[in-house]
Parts: sequence; structure tokens; C-alpha cells
Amino acid sequence: MTATAATSSAATAVAALRAAVEEALEAALPPESSWPATIHKAVRYSLFAGGKRIRPLLVLAAGEAVGGERGELLPLACAVEMIHTYSLIHDDLPAMDNDDLRRGKPTSHKVFGEAIAILAGDALLTRAFHLLAEVPAGAGDALVRRRLRASAELGLACGTTGLIGGQVMDLESEGKAISAASLERLHRAKTGALLKASIRGGAVLGGAAEEDLARLTRYADAIGLAFQVVDDVLDATEDAEHLGKTAGKDEAAHKATYVSIHGLERAREMAAALREEALGALAPLGPKGALLAALGREIVDRHS
Amino acid sequence: MTATAATSSAATAVAALRAAVEEALEAALPPESSWPATIHKAVRYSLFAGGKRIRPLLVLAAGEAVGGERGELLPLACAVEMIHTYSLIHDDLPAMDNDDLRRGKPTSHKVFGEAIAILAGDALLTRAFHLLAEVPAGAGDALVRRRLRASAELGLACGTTGLIGGQVMDLESEGKAISAASLERLHRAKTGALLKASIRGGAVLGGAAEEDLARLTRYADAIGLAFQVVDDVLDATEDAEHLGKTAGKDEAAHKATYVSIHGLERAREMAAALREEALGALAPLGPKGALLAALGREIVDRHS
Repeated sequence: MTATAATSSAATAVAALRAAVEEALEAALPPESSWPATIHKAVRYSLFAGGKRIRPLLVLAAGEAVGGERGELLPLACAVEMIHTYSLIHDDLPAMDNDDLRRGKPTSHKVFGEAIAILAGDALLTRAFHLLAEVPAGAGDALVRRRLRASAELGLACGTTGLIGGQVMDLESEGKAISAASLERLHRAKTGALLKASIRGGAVLGGAAEEDLARLTRYADAIGLAFQVVDDVLDATEDAEHLGKTAGKDEAAHKATYVSIHGLERAREMAAALREEALGALAPLGPKGALLAALGREIVDRHS
Repeated sequence: MTATAATSSAATAVAALRAAVEEALEAALPPESSWPATIHKAVRYSLFAGGKRIRPLLVLAAGEAVGGERGELLPLACAVEMIHTYSLIHDDLPAMDNDDLRRGKPTSHKVFGEAIAILAGDALLTRAFHLLAEVPAGAGDALVRRRLRASAELGLACGTTGLIGGQVMDLESEGKAISAASLERLHRAKTGALLKASIRGGAVLGGAAEEDLARLTRYADAIGLAFQVVDDVLDATEDAEHLGKTAGKDEAAHKATYVSIHGLERAREMAAALREEALGALAPLGPKGALLAALGREIVDRHS
């Protein structure tokens, strides 16, 4: 296959995965009209606000790379997107980052008020773990065990040394000079942990052998950091229209970023090096790793 | 055994369970000093603020009533107390009930600020599900399956038709006249669902046969409602010193309660009838149900 044909085939595969994720997310939540309608409207408003579904795609690609069935991976794919969305809703609150705009739309608290926005985040976090715990009647021991293990991966990633810890550190370092090491720690917690749980969790649900799990963990560590480096580069270089959120916000908030610490060129080099590290970790998987490789490239080479 | 001896023996047993819960909660969270310290301080501040541990006691009593081992019940006992504490922290926020006092101490956001209070709630909710998913290496299939099922019970109870739905309904009915049926629906969601998940989850972890699970579910439904009726009676009759929170708040907020709808005497009668219904459901369990019966009495006859 030529490079162009491979890219196009990967794009088709990613589009199919994305469609499967949308359908599963739709089915994983009560309809807007069901009691209590306010919270279901708020939850759906943010969950279907045009997110890129990067985390669910990583779940599916990692799980399928080790031979997992898509149907067994979708509950985690939905769960990580719900967690991601909850974290955005809470981060955007007036008491936190006080953001009015997210993905080009007014944030949850601007539309529904603070109380409902807080509860919508709580609801998505709760539903994520609930979804993982719901197994079909007659599910076998292996499936049950993998679900519980995926739930443990997710719990660790979202806890006080992961997602929440990263947000605390972010709040506490605003306007302060922080070291490159602290910045990496912050982002490994705030962004990296959930990306890693998506990849590792997908692999666990797919029944990965320990050596493949170790390879995918290396891939996850590199991609998780690359993701944030690219985010900082985009914040410094793209306009709001492209990003769908306020641009240049980091500089305005005197926030330490990879760009402010290392400069724009060095940050770009870091992202490229991390991409190569991620792709290198996938090499032993051969063609089975093609989709993860394509997603890795998409994450690093994105423009929004 | 005489009635007095039975009461005293139940009190001793409850004290032993309570001590086991305190120890397990202490071990289930990182120390205050561990990174990031702010959030661990905030989480511990609210979790160890003198709560009565009613939900964990119900987990242990229900699980032991059907022959469960205490060690296998404690993760859920901790989880339900974490969920209860998270719901209090978020309910007390300025955007919700705006409460300054809880269990006689300043609320989380008064001490740590709103951002950390929101994150402390998130952290407790997350840790609850994480704790259930963490199984010892070498855990058998039965334990793994029970844990996942308990996690599903908890997920349902805390979701948009349970805890969160109840809070939404509570916010939306403030200052409005609501029917007796709506009030019951509100409380079955806001208070009843988590009490029920504590009892049913404990029974599931304890390996209950389906018929015992059905009995304990009837007990749970009655006790869950009784709990809230008594809460409303106490709000109308006790002072703040006794309650450790603002008293007479419901009336001041023009909030519909069992007392405002049915009157004080009728509310007291309802609580007593629900207590008898709960005790009746336990009867077929014989002496194994003694501790649950004692807790049922404690819940209905409490003064704070």
C-alpha cells in the first residue's frame, strides 16, 4: 500500500470508529425528555458539543490492536468521553477557570446556571463508572474481570493523583513561575492520565498480553505528553475561530506552558520527538498498530 | 435475652462496626501531606467531620446478616460514606443550598474556597468507585463479580434518577408548592436511593440469596423514606446546637417537607409506621436481622 492509500484507509477506519462512538454515547444516556429533564438536557448539551472523541478512539484502537471486539470496548469508550466532558464542565466553572466559551459554544454554566453545571459534571462522572459496571445478563467471568480492571484504571486516572490532582496543581500554579519538571508533572496528571487510562483500559478490555500492555503504556505516556505540548503550541499560534475556545488565554493568564518555558520552536521539536517515541513503541505490533499510529499522528499534527 | 440486654448488645456491636469503618476510611485515602496536599486536606476535612456513618453501618449490617465477611464489605462501606460526603459538599456550595455550617463546622467551600470544594466532592465520588474496583491480587471470580454488581447498584443510586435527580428536583421545587407524591419521589431519589444501595450493595457483597435480597430491599425502601421524614421532623423541632446545622431552614426557605404537607403529628406517625414496616421485612431473617433492626430503630428515633 502507498503512504497515501494507507492514510486514506486509516481515515476511513477512524470515521467508522467515530460513528460507532456517537451511536454508543447516544444509547448510553437517557433521552432529554426523561425525568429530570433539566439534567439530561445539560448532560447532552456538553457531551454532544462537537468533541473530537480522541479518548474513545484511543480505547477502540488500543483494544482492537490486541484483538478485542468492538462491542466489548464501547462502554469504556463512552466512559472516558463522559469523564473528559465532566472535567471540562467543572474546569470551566466561575470558581475554576471561569470560561464562557467551549468548542465554540457557551459553556454549561452560562446556559444552565452553575448549580446544574456542577450536577451535570457529577452526573457524567457517575454514569461513566455505572456504565462500566453494567454487564449483560450471563456475562462470563473474563468479561466481568476485565470490566472491573478497566474501572480501576479509570478510577486511578481520575483521582487526586490524576485528573483532579492536575487541576489542583493548575489552579495553584496560575501566575507563578514553575519549573519544566513541575509542568510535566502537572500535565501527566491533568491530561496524560486519562489518555493513558483510555489506551491501557482499551487494551485490558481487549484482553492484551502483559507485553503488549507494556508497549501500549509506552505509547500512551508519549502521546499523553505530546497532546499537551501541541495544545500549548496551538494556544500560542492559532486564533479563537480555529480553536473553538478563547485563544492566547495561557499568556493572558501568565500560565506556564511548554511554549513559555521552552519557546515555540523547542516545543514543536518536543512534540515531534514524542510522536516518534510513540510510533516506535507500536512498531512490534506491526500492522495491528496502524490505527493507533494514525491517531498518534492526528493528535500531534492537529490544528485545533 | 431481655430487651435491655439486647439493646445493649446491639449498641456494642454497632460501636465495633463504627470503629471498623473509621479505620477503613482512614486507610482508603492518601495522607494529608501527600501530593497534592490541598485536595487531600479538603477531602479529609469533610470525611472526618463527625458523620454518623449510617450508610456504612447499613452496608456492614446487611452484609453480615446474610453471612458476608466484614473485610469484603468494608470497601463498599467506605464508598457509600465517600459518596454521601461528596453530595453534602456539593449541595452546600453557594450555587446550590449556600450553607455555611455542616455538622457544626464551616462547610468545605468556606474553608478551602469553592474551586477546591468542587474538586474535593469530585475526588470523593471518584475514589468511591475506584475503591470498589481495587481487588486484591488473586481475588476469585465470585468476589470480582460481586464488586462489579455493587458498583452497578451504586452507579444507579448516584445517577440522574437517584441522588443527582433528587438534588435537581430539590433545587427546582424550592419555594413552590409540591404534592405529597412529588415530595416522596424527591426523597426516594435524594436520600432513599443511596440508603438502598448501601443495604442492597452490602447484601450483594455478602452473597445474599435472591429472597433475602428482596426482604432487605423492602427494609431499605421503608427505612429510606423514614430517614427523610424524621429529618423533616427534626428540622422543625430541634435547635441548631442539637442538629449541628442550621435549624428551621426548610420553613425559612419555604421548602415543602413532610411536616409542611402533612403536619407534625402525621409526619411522626408516618415515621413510626415506616419503622414497623422495615422491622416487619426483617422478621423472616430471625436473629441475623437484629443489627439491622437496631439500626432501623436508631435512624427513626434519633434526635440529630
